[in-house]
Amino acid sequence: MSILLYDLAGADPELRFSPYCWRTKMALRHKGLDFETVPWRFTEKEVLAPSGQGRVPVIVDSGRWVSDSWTIAGYLDEAYPDRPPLFPDARAKAQALFVNAWCDGVIAAARPLVMPHLYGLIAERDKAYFKESREARFGPMDGWGEGAAAAAGALVQARRPAEAVLAGLPFLSGDQPGYADYALFGTLKWPDTICPQPVLAPGSTVQAWYERMAGHYGGYAASAPTARTLAG
Amino acid sequence: MSILLYDLAGADPELRFSPYCWRTKMALRHKGLDFETVPWRFTEKEVLAPSGQGRVPVIVDSGRWVSDSWTIAGYLDEAYPDRPPLFPDARAKAQALFVNAWCDGVIAAARPLVMPHLYGLIAERDKAYFKESREARFGPMDGWGEGAAAAAGALVQARRPAEAVLAGLPFLSGDQPGYADYALFGTLKWPDTICPQPVLAPGSTVQAWYERMAGHYGGYAASAPTARTLAG
Repeated sequence: MSILLYDLAGADPELRFSPYCWRTKMALRHKGLDFETVPWRFTEKEVLAPSGQGRVPVIVDSGRWVSDSWTIAGYLDEAYPDRPPLFPDARAKAQALFVNAWCDGVIAAARPLVMPHLYGLIAERDKAYFKESREARFGPMDGWGEGAAAAAGALVQARRPAEAVLAGLPFLSGDQPGYADYALFGTLKWPDTICPQPVLAPGSTVQAWYERMAGHYGGYAASAPTARTLAG
Repeated sequence: MSILLYDLAGADPELRFSPYCWRTKMALRHKGLDFETVPWRFTEKEVLAPSGQGRVPVIVDSGRWVSDSWTIAGYLDEAYPDRPPLFPDARAKAQALFVNAWCDGVIAAARPLVMPHLYGLIAERDKAYFKESREARFGPMDGWGEGAAAAAGALVQARRPAEAVLAGLPFLSGDQPGYADYALFGTLKWPDTICPQPVLAPGSTVQAWYERMAGHYGGYAASAPTARTLAG
């Protein structure tokens, strides 16, 4: 039986934009495990009740419910030790966790770029919940885009550690992609899926890596619809 | 013959504050190599001429001159493969480079905290050069401390990826310190050596790790004078 992944979706069920769900999808591809994604909306909390919380990603693997992208990655290595490891050793796991946490800071920095566009793309039934919960965290909705230009600049700054590695290596993890790559890929897949314009400068080191990642695993991520392709 | 390290010094030759030289000193301790440090001042460019550039750290190892802390680390592993590796494998090196580059961003963020105090601690003969070269990069000297409060906040934010790892592990590299630890330790040793007040909040995860690092290798870094201990 294949693994089930609850995957955050927009009004269009094919629009899958969660940076954390993308980390999990790439990790599942890395492990070579069969999985199916189920489109999930912000307000479908009751569906996730067996996981003990209300956010995705959540996987169900032969009746076991596991939530949180980082926890899921650790689970996959423990449950499937015969598959390619996400974390070959303790040092690799420690350093992937560092990159994973750094990526969460990039998500925070990118928020003004993404949030104004996101509201228009989510399901109608999610909008009241989304507005209320996000206004509680980020203030009134009409200010969500404030600082978008500064955010674009911050994002360029924030990418520097990745650029330092990618200047000399194809992947953040070296010759092959690893969890550090999936963490950053998911992070950038989020604005790339939502924003009306591509967020990565063409010809940059990170953009070339992003395309390489999108093309990996048979073009798995490259084939996922974005707001741009769905509008086109 | 032991390795020679040109190590940036203040007016007091015992005040060694360069974040990059600290990375190298900790890397040399990790390798268990004998080395001597030579106090070096900003204006002693001619001393470094054989290295082909004018900044420290520079090491001289049996007549070989090597500069740049990251390059030196790679050199040490290549030249001394029988000693404990700084980079056990390609992935470890890629991920240490990520942390190293991230630390350079922390240095930039911490600059308003350090620069106003630094000028008073460097050698008299360095002051004209230091003022001119830093004003060219950072603007007029009387503005160097602008945004110090914001910098302190940015520093706390910037430490989050480290905190994520150190919440569960003693070192950024796992059970034992590695180059990622030396990169961040050197980074924080810089404001800690220069600032009149400690920059790390007591009781924080990062502060506990910093003390652990300072105490490592027989308390090597803990025994280095700071502006506070020299003034006391």
